[in-house]
Amino acid sequence: MDANEVLKAVKAGTMSVEEAEAFFRRKPFEDLGFGKVDVHRKLRTGAAEVVWCEGKADDHLLRLYEHIISSEGEVLGTRATPHQAELIKAHFPEAFYDPISRILKIEKDGKLHRGLICVCSAGSADLRVAEEAALTAEFLGNKVLRVYDVGVSGLHRLLSKLEEIQKANCIVAVAGMEGALASVIGGLVSKPVLAVPTSVGYGASFHGLSALLTMLNSCANGVATLNIDNGFGAGFMASQINLAICQGGSHE
Amino acid sequence: MDANEVLKAVKAGTMSVEEAEAFFRRKPFEDLGFGKVDVHRKLRTGAAEVVWCEGKADDHLLRLYEHIISSEGEVLGTRATPHQAELIKAHFPEAFYDPISRILKIEKDGKLHRGLICVCSAGSADLRVAEEAALTAEFLGNKVLRVYDVGVSGLHRLLSKLEEIQKANCIVAVAGMEGALASVIGGLVSKPVLAVPTSVGYGASFHGLSALLTMLNSCANGVATLNIDNGFGAGFMASQINLAICQGGSHE
Amino acid sequence: MDANEVLKAVKAGTMSVEEAEAFFRRKPFEDLGFGKVDVHRKLRTGAAEVVWCEGKADDHLLRLYEHIISSEGEVLGTRATPHQAELIKAHFPEAFYDPISRILKIEKDGKLHRGLICVCSAGSADLRVAEEAALTAEFLGNKVLRVYDVGVSGLHRLLSKLEEIQKANCIVAVAGMEGALASVIGGLVSKPVLAVPTSVGYGASFHGLSALLTMLNSCANGVATLNIDNGFGAGFMASQINLAICQGGSHE
Amino acid sequence: MDANEVLKAVKAGTMSVEEAEAFFRRKPFEDLGFGKVDVHRKLRTGAAEVVWCEGKADDHLLRLYEHIISSEGEVLGTRATPHQAELIKAHFPEAFYDPISRILKIEKDGKLHRGLICVCSAGSADLRVAEEAALTAEFLGNKVLRVYDVGVSGLHRLLSKLEEIQKANCIVAVAGMEGALASVIGGLVSKPVLAVPTSVGYGASFHGLSALLTMLNSCANGVATLNIDNGFGAGFMASQINLAICQGGSHE
Amino acid sequence: MDANEVLKAVKAGTMSVEEAEAFFRRKPFEDLGFGKVDVHRKLRTGAAEVVWCEGKADDHLLRLYEHIISSEGEVLGTRATPHQAELIKAHFPEAFYDPISRILKIEKDGKLHRGLICVCSAGSADLRVAEEAALTAEFLGNKVLRVYDVGVSGLHRLLSKLEEIQKANCIVAVAGMEGALASVIGGLVSKPVLAVPTSVGYGASFHGLSALLTMLNSCANGVATLNIDNGFGAGFMASQINLAICQGGSHE
Amino acid sequence: MDANEVLKAVKAGTMSVEEAEAFFRRKPFEDLGFGKVDVHRKLRTGAAEVVWCEGKADDHLLRLYEHIISSEGEVLGTRATPHQAELIKAHFPEAFYDPISRILKIEKDGKLHRGLICVCSAGSADLRVAEEAALTAEFLGNKVLRVYDVGVSGLHRLLSKLEEIQKANCIVAVAGMEGALASVIGGLVSKPVLAVPTSVGYGASFHGLSALLTMLNSCANGVATLNIDNGFGAGFMASQINLAICQGGSHE
Amino acid sequence: MDANEVLKAVKAGTMSVEEAEAFFRRKPFEDLGFGKVDVHRKLRTGAAEVVWCEGKADDHLLRLYEHIISSEGEVLGTRATPHQAELIKAHFPEAFYDPISRILKIEKDGKLHRGLICVCSAGSADLRVAEEAALTAEFLGNKVLRVYDVGVSGLHRLLSKLEEIQKANCIVAVAGMEGALASVIGGLVSKPVLAVPTSVGYGASFHGLSALLTMLNSCANGVATLNIDNGFGAGFMASQINLAICQGGSHE
Amino acid sequence: MDANEVLKAVKAGTMSVEEAEAFFRRKPFEDLGFGKVDVHRKLRTGAAEVVWCEGKADDHLLRLYEHIISSEGEVLGTRATPHQAELIKAHFPEAFYDPISRILKIEKDGKLHRGLICVCSAGSADLRVAEEAALTAEFLGNKVLRVYDVGVSGLHRLLSKLEEIQKANCIVAVAGMEGALASVIGGLVSKPVLAVPTSVGYGASFHGLSALLTMLNSCANGVATLNIDNGFGAGFMASQINLAICQGGSHE
Repeated sequence: MDANEVLKAVKAGTMSVEEAEAFFRRKPFEDLGFGKVDVHRKLRTGAAEVVWCEGKADDHLLRLYEHIISSEGEVLGTRATPHQAELIKAHFPEAFYDPISRILKIEKDGKLHRGLICVCSAGSADLRVAEEAALTAEFLGNKVLRVYDVGVSGLHRLLSKLEEIQKANCIVAVAGMEGALASVIGGLVSKPVLAVPTSVGYGASFHGLSALLTMLNSCANGVATLNIDNGFGAGFMASQINLAICQGGSHE
Repeated sequence: MDANEVLKAVKAGTMSVEEAEAFFRRKPFEDLGFGKVDVHRKLRTGAAEVVWCEGKADDHLLRLYEHIISSEGEVLGTRATPHQAELIKAHFPEAFYDPISRILKIEKDGKLHRGLICVCSAGSADLRVAEEAALTAEFLGNKVLRVYDVGVSGLHRLLSKLEEIQKANCIVAVAGMEGALASVIGGLVSKPVLAVPTSVGYGASFHGLSALLTMLNSCANGVATLNIDNGFGAGFMASQINLAICQGGSHE
Repeated sequence: MDANEVLKAVKAGTMSVEEAEAFFRRKPFEDLGFGKVDVHRKLRTGAAEVVWCEGKADDHLLRLYEHIISSEGEVLGTRATPHQAELIKAHFPEAFYDPISRILKIEKDGKLHRGLICVCSAGSADLRVAEEAALTAEFLGNKVLRVYDVGVSGLHRLLSKLEEIQKANCIVAVAGMEGALASVIGGLVSKPVLAVPTSVGYGASFHGLSALLTMLNSCANGVATLNIDNGFGAGFMASQINLAICQGGSHE
Repeated sequence: MDANEVLKAVKAGTMSVEEAEAFFRRKPFEDLGFGKVDVHRKLRTGAAEVVWCEGKADDHLLRLYEHIISSEGEVLGTRATPHQAELIKAHFPEAFYDPISRILKIEKDGKLHRGLICVCSAGSADLRVAEEAALTAEFLGNKVLRVYDVGVSGLHRLLSKLEEIQKANCIVAVAGMEGALASVIGGLVSKPVLAVPTSVGYGASFHGLSALLTMLNSCANGVATLNIDNGFGAGFMASQINLAICQGGSHE
Repeated sequence: MDANEVLKAVKAGTMSVEEAEAFFRRKPFEDLGFGKVDVHRKLRTGAAEVVWCEGKADDHLLRLYEHIISSEGEVLGTRATPHQAELIKAHFPEAFYDPISRILKIEKDGKLHRGLICVCSAGSADLRVAEEAALTAEFLGNKVLRVYDVGVSGLHRLLSKLEEIQKANCIVAVAGMEGALASVIGGLVSKPVLAVPTSVGYGASFHGLSALLTMLNSCANGVATLNIDNGFGAGFMASQINLAICQGGSHE
Repeated sequence: MDANEVLKAVKAGTMSVEEAEAFFRRKPFEDLGFGKVDVHRKLRTGAAEVVWCEGKADDHLLRLYEHIISSEGEVLGTRATPHQAELIKAHFPEAFYDPISRILKIEKDGKLHRGLICVCSAGSADLRVAEEAALTAEFLGNKVLRVYDVGVSGLHRLLSKLEEIQKANCIVAVAGMEGALASVIGGLVSKPVLAVPTSVGYGASFHGLSALLTMLNSCANGVATLNIDNGFGAGFMASQINLAICQGGSHE
Repeated sequence: MDANEVLKAVKAGTMSVEEAEAFFRRKPFEDLGFGKVDVHRKLRTGAAEVVWCEGKADDHLLRLYEHIISSEGEVLGTRATPHQAELIKAHFPEAFYDPISRILKIEKDGKLHRGLICVCSAGSADLRVAEEAALTAEFLGNKVLRVYDVGVSGLHRLLSKLEEIQKANCIVAVAGMEGALASVIGGLVSKPVLAVPTSVGYGASFHGLSALLTMLNSCANGVATLNIDNGFGAGFMASQINLAICQGGSHE
Repeated sequence: MDANEVLKAVKAGTMSVEEAEAFFRRKPFEDLGFGKVDVHRKLRTGAAEVVWCEGKADDHLLRLYEHIISSEGEVLGTRATPHQAELIKAHFPEAFYDPISRILKIEKDGKLHRGLICVCSAGSADLRVAEEAALTAEFLGNKVLRVYDVGVSGLHRLLSKLEEIQKANCIVAVAGMEGALASVIGGLVSKPVLAVPTSVGYGASFHGLSALLTMLNSCANGVATLNIDNGFGAGFMASQINLAICQGGSHE
């Protein structure tokens, strides 16, 4: 149960005020010894803590998954190895692992997907980052349109999909090498573009630096940039934007 | 008159279909000799062309302002010098110039400001970038809350404003030197944060590189980064997000 | 008279073998004290020495112009200041100076322009570099098509000119900021593209580094890159390619 | 069959207009699920899609090779591993693999090689990049002269080959470490030089950055630079230039 | 026996002046063939030589440990591998090895721990550096308070510990990614902060460069920076400061 | 009156509890419109707000000085221009300005200077940074020993002063160019060394980057690094350390 | 036999002019297929070709060793692996391999060692580079004094050897991390210092960049810098200087 | 009188031992208040202190010149402005100022110039650095051969001078832009080459970084590199080498 559900339960009368108070008396993070799980994060920032799996020891990873599932009912992990996927699946057979994006997640059933986020990628090697963004956005409750392999060296591929892209509330543009995709899309749509440089390339791509600078210098407006290979971050922020649009704003 | 007004006029019956056709028959950009004004940009990307004043010759600048005012009824210019402000004011006495942000604009009367964007800045030297963002967002029809001089070296200043900040649909975080403001805000709110590094600082700030890297590496989620000193870009994108939220999304 | 003209005169019988021998007995460079004029350069590399005016003292500059005109009958100078233009015009009233490209040249009459080179530029601030390329190519005997202000933030401007661009034997693509123009053109044409990054931009453009990296990492084939702001170099090399195509190759 | 062959067949009367129409009705790229094969690329940019083998999964690679062979009758792959070579050879026994350049290709018989491209390299460690350029150019129908191990630390090696080098229509100069070869060649010939920095070296070569900067700053004219280790790109562009010269230009 | 103990023994009358002279007649370093052990370092800089284990050959490492133990009675080693730990434990069963910090030490019994140093770290991946600092400081005779996993993306975690942190004489702030922790702590306390950037992160963290620049540009006063991942150096310098405060200064 | 004085007055009976309450009821910062003066900073971090004069408008600067003097009785400003010095002196004739360090201060009479900080500098061009550190430390109540022009190219100059340097509780080492001074001092003393790289140098000093990296990589222990040219920061932190040592620590 | 020996033999009457002519008729380099051995290099630059073993295929390496031994009677190889050492020893049992410096050489007996070169190194990890310099210099006929482990963090180690160091004709200073050793030595001696930065260090040493910049910015005169880890280059150039001094100059 | 002259006077009987003792009793540096003049430097490093004029205040500069002339009888200053030249000439009419190299010197009459140093430069813009090297070497008593404007884009210019260059005992190679001159010379001569990168160039020359990296990565042996624009340092070190060769070495 998460904070939102507790509050709704109180409103609905299915939980007493005393029980709710007990819930909130828990201190805002719980110390597992090797790290503090940020229990109130969903309340504060709109989403539960996500597990960065890379480099986590087996037992730490398992305890994190167990802890978050017990409080949230679901969990999203990124940069998981096949070994970590085996480990979690052994305890949670319902876990899903995608070897390309390295997402390892356990998800509630019947999740509603709202609005529309479009994830575009330039080359087939950018897929792993694009899918990290797409799967993150879906986990967080967004509809996702994937438009892959539409790099600027063959513009017709992108232009043929333009009408669909323009329907999205937010676009994630993933590209390595020269990273021009974000600028080109930014000039063709009226929606915010979250640009993700990837480390795809060689030589003067300097592990993504070239694409990063390209995106920061975009001559098109409405483009902001995430860290190199940060597909998760783009999916997360696209979700913030798309879901806020779906709900409509409180100010007028 | 801009494209949107033409279409509304057609709907309202105050303009004939033939007149509207004539409007749209204009080619999508007009060549002024020294540059092409992108006439259909508002239709395509949601906002009319903005004038980057820096380095423009006097006559070019004047013709650009005249051209855009004639088609849009208003114009926004950035990075204008006091001399350029004098020049434009001599022809358009209603022009407004702010010497801190270097915004030089002529704005329609009675503009409606909707939703809420919060612009936060770390130090008093970041003001010029923060005001560029704020004035841009206001020009584009957004309500703006300014929360300035709330750098992380005195956290209580930021925390004392937190409740107000959390009401905004989108936050622009402007900071130079170590640029930590964006991460700290990102960890405290559930709304998208557009981070703008500034070139404020000296030595190892390397003209904004330090703040730029800080923001790209934000450990908080929901933070995307603009180019160094790009207050305009942040105000523009924040407007895209805030106005979309005000209108509500078309997908559900 | 240059080497080529000497040889043709010999063939035509208007110069004796002895006179030609005297011409070629001159040592391959002449020492003006402050620098060596490379007399045989046209013979060796296909073009006479070009004067880099920046920082040259007045008397050195004048003597260089005099020397090259006396041997070649014309001279091309780059990066000249208005003061230098005045100086040369005072001695050579037929001199031409373009304040945008900073080209300062004296050109033979009735020059034939052959083939076609297309010079494209992204923004109006890139004009100074684009014109340096275009004027250089024209000086060297090439027809030049200028397609300016076609940056990728408004793709329709570029696409509307595509048919004309495709007719050129070589394309020069000039762009600052994110420099995506070269990649996009490279994906649309079958001719070699010489990419020139410019120092136009601010912040993370790092004085042209961003555009330079973009162009080096072009995902389109057939793109090679010149130094930042090196319009002259691009015009020179485009001329080598275009003129060679006009003449046709000797190998089959 | 490729587009050019279709058109020639129509002209020759061996294919009906209806069949040709069917050919061109195919959409300009075909989606293999994991990536889009750019079918019309040869028509648009003068060469069929080339396969970047690095990191491709076995089944994807095989399907790409099959697809391109079916439409083009031949295929060029770069950066292939010995394992990938085994895989492709098992299905296409006529495939050729060069372990130094890592080129993996299947080539039509009796290909005509035209004009002349000269590929020069500085040290024996630069061979892998030089051969990538040379084999690419040969695949695309060019004659290639190899002049290897002629680095500037022993100038006589280069000078002894100068007469042969000067006969080429285009020169590819491959060098790591200090990368001075391109400048030196550029000063000795009148043909365009495509410079390829390599990652050969250690310490302050910074993985090819030193050679890259050297080449971009060439004091000789007629030198343009490719990405570090991009032998393929140089061979491709040299082919564009050489073949255009062989055909002669359409403009006069 | 170390120099300090010798001098105290002389004062106490348990060692004759002649014996002490013999001790100091030893030259100030001893040459083990593969390196010079700096025997007088404790006298000169306040602490005995510490062994940097990384890359040391087995026999060199063992001889260094033996040598230092024989003169100091204890030894501190950093960046030891598990294999090196096995090696030393085989000879010195009392050796202690911590696989996270990679500290490998043999310590005198009954060591007094004085004053208070607080070691804060941002994320769980920064633990290895934080523990290197903490264990070093403890070895050198300081009390250490560990406050881990208090990164700025969840400020409440840090704020909840503030009162304890403020009691320390010196604070070590360890953070990777954007490294904002040092600035935030610097603004909240009146004690010197030693900032240690870590190489934790990916993409634009550039192996710790981002956190390093952040810390150098701290907008809070009282923050100085160590090398990336240099937990040992921070623990050492914090000890210098804390122990000096415990002893009180000699000047007034 | 500052917070500390208020509390002492309460203890001494010269101020009523009610008056003290009124003092503390003031909100922790006061908004001057153009910036927030951090009134409680002295309470929180041990020192009142210091004015960074660079780029401040005349009226803002004057109001800041007036405000801080009214609450603290003194004020320290850094990076002041001669013009700013004239301005402040016109209002506060007792103001002191040092054109080398650019310190502009008004100081309480009869300040006690305690302990000892040693400020060392390498070359005469580093003086401006060294003096900024020294004057800052003196303003904050420390005794300062200046040891200037002792760069490592003439070691005897440094060694001749060693005995005096070793008496300090903390050493500030200021050096540009190769910045080796900090390492050398670090190896000779047992006290903490705060290293300040300066932008003195040319070419590969890259505006202080070289000295910065040298200091971060110091092979001597007990060295931490400040930002390039940050003499103020070093003086401030040295004061924190020296005064804490003078007072002695509360923990044992 | 090398060129010098041929000429001496002619002078001595033990070789006929015809035989010598035959020797010099050999073209100045011999093409082994995979690389050109520069036969006349010793004549031109004073030393025979040295083999860079890294990455050489077994058969290429063997043929290079055989070829150089046949013409020079000895051979020097650098950066050899243990496997390559085994290979060469199997064919040339007299070969010598040093696993630290990775020098693999076969040397003429009874070589005279002249003059004096001093090789200093800072830390024990710099040994591999220092030994590469020392063994190279010995191979080329120089006496070498090794002064190792004299880094600036313990200056007395260096000062205790100063008198010996000052006797050398040329000093090689090898250091990683902050690289201050070269500056310090440069200030203490009147002989040229060849500085070799090493990649020893971590974090902000950036693989030797820090030490490289330190050495380039040396505040002491008479210091020039080699590439990172280039011990061979330093040994070679020190030999040029030392042997020239031993022979005395021809100009007066 | 300098130390050497004192000692010779003692030997010659023109100075008593007591007078000489008085001379040497002067402390090894004299404190002028604003800096320490290193009196014994000539004794220790072979050359008197040289004045870096840049940024020195008028009175400091004058006192430095006076002081060094009084002890040495001559003085060498670098990077002097025309204003500083006027100042010194007003007091020392015999002073010589060269506006290109910015050398400002007063030199003893009848100085003997020995041996031979060759200073080569690539382009006419490199002259200021080349002349700084040449004039420094001449001041220190060396014969200098100037070979200017011999950049690698016209190799014949360099090759035509090769015989003369090879006669020098040491070569200084000065080049900006791509800096290839040092490598090319290094491959043609058997003498040590001191390479000086200059900041000449634009764009990707990055103020001399490109030439610096080129020289550090020289594929020719016997090349060591000075700081960007450090003509003085090259002239100084070339003098050390040349004069040592002239004297012949003491070791055999």
